[in-house]
Amino acid sequence: MNIRPRTRATSFDVAALAGVSQSAVSRAFTPGSSLAEEKRLRIIEAARKLNYVPNSIARSLTTQRSNIVAVILGNTANPFYLQVLEAFMHRLQAEGRQVLTFTVENGGESDEAILRVLRYQVDGVILTSAQLSTRMVSLCHDRGIPVVLFNRYIPGSDASGVRCANAEGGRQIATAFLAAGARSFAMIKGDPKGTTSQDRARGFVDRLMEAGIGRDAISELEGHSVYDGAHEAVVREFRDGRTKIPDAIFGINDIMAMGAMDALRQRFSLKVPDDVMIGGFDDIAEARRFPYRLTTVRQPIGQMVDETLAILHLDEPHRPIEPGRDVVVPGRLIWRRSIPAPRGDGETKGA
Amino acid sequence: MNIRPRTRATSFDVAALAGVSQSAVSRAFTPGSSLAEEKRLRIIEAARKLNYVPNSIARSLTTQRSNIVAVILGNTANPFYLQVLEAFMHRLQAEGRQVLTFTVENGGESDEAILRVLRYQVDGVILTSAQLSTRMVSLCHDRGIPVVLFNRYIPGSDASGVRCANAEGGRQIATAFLAAGARSFAMIKGDPKGTTSQDRARGFVDRLMEAGIGRDAISELEGHSVYDGAHEAVVREFRDGRTKIPDAIFGINDIMAMGAMDALRQRFSLKVPDDVMIGGFDDIAEARRFPYRLTTVRQPIGQMVDETLAILHLDEPHRPIEPGRDVVVPGRLIWRRSIPAPRGDGETKGA
Repeated sequence: MNIRPRTRATSFDVAALAGVSQSAVSRAFTPGSSLAEEKRLRIIEAARKLNYVPNSIARSLTTQRSNIVAVILGNTANPFYLQVLEAFMHRLQAEGRQVLTFTVENGGESDEAILRVLRYQVDGVILTSAQLSTRMVSLCHDRGIPVVLFNRYIPGSDASGVRCANAEGGRQIATAFLAAGARSFAMIKGDPKGTTSQDRARGFVDRLMEAGIGRDAISELEGHSVYDGAHEAVVREFRDGRTKIPDAIFGINDIMAMGAMDALRQRFSLKVPDDVMIGGFDDIAEARRFPYRLTTVRQPIGQMVDETLAILHLDEPHRPIEPGRDVVVPGRLIWRRSIPAPRGDGETKGA
Repeated sequence: MNIRPRTRATSFDVAALAGVSQSAVSRAFTPGSSLAEEKRLRIIEAARKLNYVPNSIARSLTTQRSNIVAVILGNTANPFYLQVLEAFMHRLQAEGRQVLTFTVENGGESDEAILRVLRYQVDGVILTSAQLSTRMVSLCHDRGIPVVLFNRYIPGSDASGVRCANAEGGRQIATAFLAAGARSFAMIKGDPKGTTSQDRARGFVDRLMEAGIGRDAISELEGHSVYDGAHEAVVREFRDGRTKIPDAIFGINDIMAMGAMDALRQRFSLKVPDDVMIGGFDDIAEARRFPYRLTTVRQPIGQMVDETLAILHLDEPHRPIEPGRDVVVPGRLIWRRSIPAPRGDGETKGA
């Protein structure tokens, strides 16, 4: 049994006990730095005896840097945002930083979460799939903490944002459906307050109307941005047989497209794409698998993560925050099986 | 443009400016505490003007508590561990704590990650799907930081662990296969150093041998605990047609069972369970969906999270760390479609 310690040794004590320089002690605790294995073990042993570890939080009070970045997650039920979290964890860790996670209700208010965030000394805040008031953005910016909205923007906000060309992606799916001969449509929307869902839906409808499709040939379902929500919405909409199943259904994210696809196969014994075409958005790993092979718009997560980190400029804490930047990166249509390809020649290379 | 600030106001300054008590200032920044909305806004406004926020990290240097728990993730490609991370994020946040994430290679060494962890003032460490040396566990325990291994144990280690009854679960899948008439078997194993994979495989093989199945009727494939790994292993094993496809395949986790199932359908046009039965382990959300409907062993994530937090006893930091506890919780066989049920009566209720 160990009793939790009270004393605090310094790197000087450890260096003295291990018979090395203070700089060697510092290197022993810096991942990736060079040091002979024997020396590292000796230092760790001395550190153990003295209950010493370097405390980057104590250091942060002097330097004002904690090397912690807060990620606020609004929808952990959508694998896309877990894949985004994963990308941030790996990228930040590779540069010696860690992610402190905060969750809020799907599409919910993050003001409460920001109050929590501010109790820690974080170097930046990344917010996905959630709302944030202008007041809270100012509170962060006034403290010198940059805020980046990932795949979202808040009109009138000082927060910067990085997002995919969502409306354009919606247009691409509409174009693919039209080329495959679809004339009646449904779209399954997500978080009604989220700009991501709104923009994709708008691009989709605009493109269809430009092609002469009437607004009454485009129905709308609410899927709450999750698999089960889309599954239930499809069953509810079509189970009494009075509503005709359309030629094509656009899930404004992949996980809803998958939920819709499974509902159509399971409850109505329909074949995709023969009986109904399905298009998605995101290109999550699950959508690439054999049972789904979803035609979708790929969001370039790597590039979006790069752009987000560029705005945070964590390496230059004294550079002023530049508010209100809005970076838009293009998505890419990936052809698989859920929409017949123009020349019927199958999947996009490398998809 | 805002310049990052240097000054630090105190709660006294904020209380004075807002015309409230210091305790009201504290409550304004404590999520969930009661305070009139008008007063909260006034305090936030005053805090903004003064660049004040309560800093729980500064406080942690006095109290030795940061309310941060480190979670080390060894396999972010297995959705099970992302679902576990999600459970910890929600549970810890509900009690006013946050998760600081660390990633290591799948099944890899965490010693380097622990050195990183120790640079922060964390209240506890949870480790999933990765290795950890005894030395590093001692380093944490000596600092008063409890370590819990989630679904893993390290023989001879002082770290406590919480895990599912993995060997017993492997036995349950074997029993289900036998009851359905299977006589030849394959199992797809994961991380060879991981006790989880070893125990499930051992229970599976022991049960089959007890039933008189010869060791040569049980082949072993390596799937590296991920979808693609299992998919490729199945294709490689059976593509030349010289190896007979067995009656039943056990993926020692669901994501590998799914990869195997897709490979069998996509590359060999086989039907599940008619041509080959598949069993899994974990009961991830994906395994429940229409294309998979996997018969599997459900790990009770909620209960395992509870047991982990009980061992960390974050609310009682002065209670000594009790090393080497090993908590085992039973899994539950969930009948779906990938193994014919005993009386052919379909899915487990509530599955």
